[in-house]
Amino acid sequence: MLKPLGDRIIIEPVASEEKTASGIVLPDTAKEKPQEGKVVAVGTGRILENGERVALEVSVGDRIIFSKYAGTEVKYDGTEYLIVRENDILAVIG
Amino acid sequence: MLKPLGDRIIIEPVASEEKTASGIVLPDTAKEKPQEGKVVAVGTGRILENGERVALEVSVGDRIIFSKYAGTEVKYDGTEYLIVRENDILAVIG
Amino acid sequence: MLKPLGDRIIIEPVASEEKTASGIVLPDTAKEKPQEGKVVAVGTGRILENGERVALEVSVGDRIIFSKYAGTEVKYDGTEYLIVRENDILAVIG
Amino acid sequence: MLKPLGDRIIIEPVASEEKTASGIVLPDTAKEKPQEGKVVAVGTGRILENGERVALEVSVGDRIIFSKYAGTEVKYDGTEYLIVRENDILAVIG
Amino acid sequence: MLKPLGDRIIIEPVASEEKTASGIVLPDTAKEKPQEGKVVAVGTGRILENGERVALEVSVGDRIIFSKYAGTEVKYDGTEYLIVRENDILAVIG
Amino acid sequence: MLKPLGDRIIIEPVASEEKTASGIVLPDTAKEKPQEGKVVAVGTGRILENGERVALEVSVGDRIIFSKYAGTEVKYDGTEYLIVRENDILAVIG
Amino acid sequence: MLKPLGDRIIIEPVASEEKTASGIVLPDTAKEKPQEGKVVAVGTGRILENGERVALEVSVGDRIIFSKYAGTEVKYDGTEYLIVRENDILAVIG
Repeated sequence: MLKPLGDRIIIEPVASEEKTASGIVLPDTAKEKPQEGKVVAVGTGRILENGERVALEVSVGDRIIFSKYAGTEVKYDGTEYLIVRENDILAVIG
Repeated sequence: MLKPLGDRIIIEPVASEEKTASGIVLPDTAKEKPQEGKVVAVGTGRILENGERVALEVSVGDRIIFSKYAGTEVKYDGTEYLIVRENDILAVIG
Repeated sequence: MLKPLGDRIIIEPVASEEKTASGIVLPDTAKEKPQEGKVVAVGTGRILENGERVALEVSVGDRIIFSKYAGTEVKYDGTEYLIVRENDILAVIG
Repeated sequence: MLKPLGDRIIIEPVASEEKTASGIVLPDTAKEKPQEGKVVAVGTGRILENGERVALEVSVGDRIIFSKYAGTEVKYDGTEYLIVRENDILAVIG
Repeated sequence: MLKPLGDRIIIEPVASEEKTASGIVLPDTAKEKPQEGKVVAVGTGRILENGERVALEVSVGDRIIFSKYAGTEVKYDGTEYLIVRENDILAVIG
Repeated sequence: MLKPLGDRIIIEPVASEEKTASGIVLPDTAKEKPQEGKVVAVGTGRILENGERVALEVSVGDRIIFSKYAGTEVKYDGTEYLIVRENDILAVIG
Repeated sequence: MLKPLGDRIIIEPVASEEKTASGIVLPDTAKEKPQEGKVVAVGTGRILENGERVALEVSVGDRIIFSKYAGTEVKYDGTEYLIVRENDILAVIG
């Protein structure tokens, strides 16, 4: 499996059909477009200047909304993932 | 419901009719345009470099003025929201 | 009333007639233009990286000079205000 | 009188005739041009991230050289002043 | 051998044939393209502002995914390497 | 005399004839061009975020090499000086 | 001799013939090009915000690889040197 570094998170993007099911509809305007996904792996968190490591706020399995243009695409074992930073995650769908 | 991360806040924008009712009239000039909204969810706050988490100054239910061009639009259960950072909120209408 | 957040300040700009009365004449050059105003509300101050909150240097009622192009205009109960950050305030007229 | 905020300083620029008297001649090249002035008011200093306030290095009455393109012009009681940050002051003429 | 400085890491990029074997397929889209590689040397880590040195999260021998456009190419003893910063490494393949 | 502020340094540039004497020959390439000079005054140093002031590494009388395009020219008592920041000084000729 | 300031390092670049001898061959691609050199002088290191000085990781005599476009060229006693910052040094050849 892929283990992200620092404050990175690996996301399995949710296809458009699923979006409708969970109640999220993403508008098609000139604004920054968010996208829905599922967290499949989280890093150990970023290091503060005092040496502390801050654990991530999201956990594996969380359904999240993230910035559509964020991250790096990667295909692993036939599935497409996105590797983003926690800062690109806007909200958890809970 | 949507749970915002860090210093993010979820806002339900107030339509133009309501604005007049609450006494806020937003001018149409070349300046940055503010917009009125209602806070529907708040994050846990940002982390300082000493490891402290700073709670947000706004609370759910607050009526606020925020930067019009800030944030990301998202539609959830048929309602349109904006996810902004606390820094984009200018004032609370109290 | 409007309650500004963080290091923000709400200003009622002073009209040109009053400026002459208080002795401030603002030049019309290519330089950054300052403007005179009266502080009507102050935020709780910004948070330092050590967690301390720094109280603002200006108080409600202060007559101030601020950067003309700073801030966001808002009309509330028929009066026009500007919401600026403390950093945009140049001096207090004392 | 005008009371500058933070690390700001109010300067009365010195006219060209005085410059010659004090021995400073400012060249007319493509380089950044400095200008001579007299300090008429100083702020309380900037706040460090540990909460300390750093007093300014210049005092009222000091003759200084500052960056010509720095600051904001303001006319008060018939005199023209410049409001600059301490960082725009290059040297004290002592 | 080459010893990288600070938070730098020396990577032996993995050729396209090996990629398929390990299950990583890298898409050819307009997004930032990641690349697979093997860590052959790691620096001592970066220094925080409190003087602590943060050890790197990756170790020699790790298979990693990194930003394709990151780093500096160098050929040593007939082998081509890339010197990147830890921040350019997205995930470990574990 | 001129007393520089903070981490500023006043330099008397060395003319081309002297340069040859001290052994420094400055190339005329597309790279950033350094210049030789003599330190005639130093500031008290910059303030760290913990409140400490860091004394400058150069002393009055030092022969130094500095970035040619750095600083502000000023003429004082018939001599031309440059006011630069310590960061613009590359090396001491010792 | 030249004594570099802060985290600066003086390098004697290695000519192309020597490069082959040490096993480093530098490719001619569109990527950032590294260059080989020998450390001839090191500064005292940079100062952290807590007042500590961080000694450099390289020592006089080290063979290093550095960013080709980094630094400032200077000729001293007939030899050409480069003055770079430690951050421009990629690896030590050990």
